[in-house]
Amino acid sequence: MDIQNCSYLCKKENLKIRLSRIEGQIKGIEKMIEEGKYCIDVLNQIAAVRAALKKVGIIILKEHTKGCVLNSKGTGEEEEKISELMELIEKFLR
Amino acid sequence: MDIQNCSYLCKKENLKIRLSRIEGQIKGIEKMIEEGKYCIDVLNQIAAVRAALKKVGIIILKEHTKGCVLNSKGTGEEEEKISELMELIEKFLR
Amino acid sequence: MDIQNCSYLCKKENLKIRLSRIEGQIKGIEKMIEEGKYCIDVLNQIAAVRAALKKVGIIILKEHTKGCVLNSKGTGEEEEKISELMELIEKFLR
Amino acid sequence: MDIQNCSYLCKKENLKIRLSRIEGQIKGIEKMIEEGKYCIDVLNQIAAVRAALKKVGIIILKEHTKGCVLNSKGTGEEEEKISELMELIEKFLR
Repeated sequence: MDIQNCSYLCKKENLKIRLSRIEGQIKGIEKMIEEGKYCIDVLNQIAAVRAALKKVGIIILKEHTKGCVLNSKGTGEEEEKISELMELIEKFLR
Repeated sequence: MDIQNCSYLCKKENLKIRLSRIEGQIKGIEKMIEEGKYCIDVLNQIAAVRAALKKVGIIILKEHTKGCVLNSKGTGEEEEKISELMELIEKFLR
Repeated sequence: MDIQNCSYLCKKENLKIRLSRIEGQIKGIEKMIEEGKYCIDVLNQIAAVRAALKKVGIIILKEHTKGCVLNSKGTGEEEEKISELMELIEKFLR
Repeated sequence: MDIQNCSYLCKKENLKIRLSRIEGQIKGIEKMIEEGKYCIDVLNQIAAVRAALKKVGIIILKEHTKGCVLNSKGTGEEEEKISELMELIEKFLR
């Protein structure tokens, strides 16, 4: 863990607001299921939360590329950092 | 809203357990960001939550197809129900 | 293989046109790589082809649901047909 | 277009082999539809081609990050290059 390089921290407040909103949405979905809401509405809400989480992921990914990946240039760790990034993108692409 | 047709309710307990676990994971991500954890670890957690939400979606989608979609057969609403299902799948495919 | 149930055949001409266009796009990507085009442009083309293939998949999926899935109602094969459909959607969701 | 930076060219032969295989798969799907094959089999083939295209995309994305993105360090173009990369990833994430 290299906090200096992890520049997503400059987006910390933005990310916290997004995540607390997502938490509220999850609670909302639990309530919808409790109340037996129409399945299509529940599924739409789930799709919305997945999109919101993707957005959070993209923000961190961007800061990570600006920080950790770019800063690896010339350190001999480029290959490793970029492979790690690609693995992650593949995982997100599911 | 047609509760009788919405057969996901038979999976209610299963779904509630999954969603409360997801809520815990979201809280975990907030904590990771608060503590400045390595971005790759945060991103892996986000990918895990997205996969868990996809699973919840698939469960509801399956019950929805068994219930609402199959039961529309012969009612004249098939076309509408199936279009609604496809729109939903397209939305999830993002 | 059950041709009577596979109602995608009524979309045969539409699907063939789409696929031959996709084939042309693939050839275009090969040419772009041959000529050393800017990677972002190549990647945009790949994303476009993936979206076009998704569209073809959605068309077949819709006809499949109208045909094979809906027609399984009351035959005792519903469970199997719907499980098959969900597996497929999960595969597409990657 | 900056060929020097576009290091995907070192993977040119690999990419051409992959794309010509994909072209063959598309032709195979056209033939399956022509012959009225079972929709699930057609859909499985489409999912396979989409996965193969994703793989091609990841290879180019990796070389692009190694080349264009990493080489932008210190040129004042980092922000632009990384924004471009993220836009692309978002597009692929659909």
